[in-house]
Amino acid sequence: MKTLTRSLYACLILGLSNQVFASSALVLQTDFGLKDGAVSEMKGVSFNVDNQLRIFDLTHEIPAYNIWEASYRLYQTAAYWPQGTVFVNVVDPGVGTARKSVVLKTKTGQYFVSPDNGSLGLVAQKFGIESVREIDENVNRLKGSAGSYTFHGRDVYAYTGARLAAGVITFAEVGPELPKQVESIPYQKPEVKNNELLGNIPILDIQYGNVWSNINSDLLQQIKVKTGDVLCVQIKQAQQVKYTGKAQYVNSFGDVADGKPLIYVNSLMNVSIALNMANFSTKYHVYSGPDWSIAVKKCN
Amino acid sequence: MKTLTRSLYACLILGLSNQVFASSALVLQTDFGLKDGAVSEMKGVSFNVDNQLRIFDLTHEIPAYNIWEASYRLYQTAAYWPQGTVFVNVVDPGVGTARKSVVLKTKTGQYFVSPDNGSLGLVAQKFGIESVREIDENVNRLKGSAGSYTFHGRDVYAYTGARLAAGVITFAEVGPELPKQVESIPYQKPEVKNNELLGNIPILDIQYGNVWSNINSDLLQQIKVKTGDVLCVQIKQAQQVKYTGKAQYVNSFGDVADGKPLIYVNSLMNVSIALNMANFSTKYHVYSGPDWSIAVKKCN
Amino acid sequence: MKTLTRSLYACLILGLSNQVFASSALVLQTDFGLKDGAVSEMKGVSFNVDNQLRIFDLTHEIPAYNIWEASYRLYQTAAYWPQGTVFVNVVDPGVGTARKSVVLKTKTGQYFVSPDNGSLGLVAQKFGIESVREIDENVNRLKGSAGSYTFHGRDVYAYTGARLAAGVITFAEVGPELPKQVESIPYQKPEVKNNELLGNIPILDIQYGNVWSNINSDLLQQIKVKTGDVLCVQIKQAQQVKYTGKAQYVNSFGDVADGKPLIYVNSLMNVSIALNMANFSTKYHVYSGPDWSIAVKKCN
Repeated sequence: MKTLTRSLYACLILGLSNQVFASSALVLQTDFGLKDGAVSEMKGVSFNVDNQLRIFDLTHEIPAYNIWEASYRLYQTAAYWPQGTVFVNVVDPGVGTARKSVVLKTKTGQYFVSPDNGSLGLVAQKFGIESVREIDENVNRLKGSAGSYTFHGRDVYAYTGARLAAGVITFAEVGPELPKQVESIPYQKPEVKNNELLGNIPILDIQYGNVWSNINSDLLQQIKVKTGDVLCVQIKQAQQVKYTGKAQYVNSFGDVADGKPLIYVNSLMNVSIALNMANFSTKYHVYSGPDWSIAVKKCN
Repeated sequence: MKTLTRSLYACLILGLSNQVFASSALVLQTDFGLKDGAVSEMKGVSFNVDNQLRIFDLTHEIPAYNIWEASYRLYQTAAYWPQGTVFVNVVDPGVGTARKSVVLKTKTGQYFVSPDNGSLGLVAQKFGIESVREIDENVNRLKGSAGSYTFHGRDVYAYTGARLAAGVITFAEVGPELPKQVESIPYQKPEVKNNELLGNIPILDIQYGNVWSNINSDLLQQIKVKTGDVLCVQIKQAQQVKYTGKAQYVNSFGDVADGKPLIYVNSLMNVSIALNMANFSTKYHVYSGPDWSIAVKKCN
Repeated sequence: MKTLTRSLYACLILGLSNQVFASSALVLQTDFGLKDGAVSEMKGVSFNVDNQLRIFDLTHEIPAYNIWEASYRLYQTAAYWPQGTVFVNVVDPGVGTARKSVVLKTKTGQYFVSPDNGSLGLVAQKFGIESVREIDENVNRLKGSAGSYTFHGRDVYAYTGARLAAGVITFAEVGPELPKQVESIPYQKPEVKNNELLGNIPILDIQYGNVWSNINSDLLQQIKVKTGDVLCVQIKQAQQVKYTGKAQYVNSFGDVADGKPLIYVNSLMNVSIALNMANFSTKYHVYSGPDWSIAVKKCN
């Protein structure tokens, strides 16, 4: 019986370690690309922390140094991962400067390990800030990686994220609590003004060249747009007009001819503009970022 | 003893859930690329279904809307995954139109979750159709994703695929059974005609620019080709001749000089043409698809 | 009680199989890219060996046939993965020729499954050779893949690597032991000569265009370089000078103006040159490989 109990104990440990340790996913985002070994090093360090940890990629193709796009990808994706998920974001043009290394816990119970450089602005706005802690690098740094030259993405961020996801450290053990705020980047918030919808172009649907706004489809009702209406669109970068044109508001790309523009509601329920079977962005040189804005109204 | 039994029970559940739930792989293919969050959202939804599910990628670099290439990648890859594997294919130019969302079960016991738009034609031909079911989106759709605007790849296909792979639903619970047929795209079948081999160029070995045909190496015997023979090759797109030339039939790339053409048998046992240490496709503007064909014969 | 014991036994088997079989990672590197099904086939074969095996990617974006870069990525990354990790490297321009298929076991207890074509030179130098075995393809080859035309990356390398990582075969069962040596490619070793540091440019930090040398930062002390010093740099490909210029030695990119050159110590503790917020490589047409060298000294 003693052997049995001991075996059972071992069994439970094994079983539970799987259940407990592997239940939080670690989701990595960087601007490193996949051509070198950097992302694999981050995964190796994470696997070393817990060989049952579930490790996933958000994307590693954030354009180099593009904090805005990093913030948007986290904002877009996080809701589809469960409570407890630990995101590690390494888009860090300020590495080696005074920017803080933090873990944001949202009100929805997810964790974001990142430099506090604006990358966390959109998730903080969307999900709310439960708490922010600064990573104590005296404790939360890969052993043997001391010295002034550290690959923070691997030695601090992936290491800390993996230990948090695996339950090796608690959130409190990340480091000292900071005020409930993170850096963010200004942009045009969605609004209705003189029967016109104004908003930002946070991102492109890059594979297809479709242009996404941050204007929720609810606002279309406020200016009484119905399916089939023709809308007048203007797109600017800062104060410069980059595109002016008309597009029909439809439910499906196939509702307009090949190559024709259309307004539709994307999977985030936001107003978007595209060409059927073609690339709006490259045809009209329309891109995205905090300084890009779009105005949409019913044509007279 | 009661506690022991209860612990044991918990232990078995944990152990078995691993064994049973994680034993079928979920393999994802899309034309989304890896630059945005779409693939990660599909994985988040799948992980939410079962946090022990083994999730893999086939590729996410199918050229946008290229149903033919989607069908070929499934055809090429599936045999290397075990029975029970669930493939999710999201190459879906017709999203929002009348194309059906289905799960094909092959005679070899694999599952393919996909729009029925031609993507399933080649696997159906190769492995045989055991059964086709239409996805009942009233049941098999991510909770909270209702409304006319759904990201089908995530909310229906990944969600259904994950639940099938994890054993949360049976194949019968996918939805109503359809006739044993799927859409397919016409192409030149391999044949011998007047001592000439005719076939399709389904795909390129894209990284190296090698040109693959669908002509099985057995047919080389029928026209009495031996290693070392020089063969005459003609490649057409529809009726237009794109390449005419001679190439030696060899066992290994190194058997011809750098930059020279060669005919070889690829890892699928099909007749292929390449340049040693160079890119045949870009040099001669030869590509692939249902409308590309190749003719090979012994030179006179 | 008998049932209980049997259940417990089953439970232990399941638990232990997880613990034991899944404890060694399988890490894949190829030059196949991710656009076709080849990498997925390798993973399918590996998953078939053990459905609990942890399978990771190093990179699949090694430039086609670039053995030097393959060797460098293994060298750069391996130390961040634990003892017992099995790396599979398939960069194999000589497939079909006489090059041997081997498994290198390093003194640090990691395994490298690869063609012996120079890919293993740098890890052998860095970690030491414990033993080299030639893969016996009579035993260690995917069933049904016989014949002259084998996709070695999948049928031999991935298959053998997966079986080794999963504990299905021991290292001794790979095949016969060879002499303790592997092929390697010559390059400029780091050295100090007339107060000048000489070294190789093994690789670029490709995403950012930063130029990495193999000169350890310790050597900077030997020529008495201090933070803030201006250094004179010359870069050659073989005997041809490709770049001559001055750059300040700093701790952080932000210590020089945007677009200006800087010398820094990278995460591998090696001397490197870059432009702050710009791409040194594309601006000056400086690349990497065994024939690229760099010379750094204090300017007079």
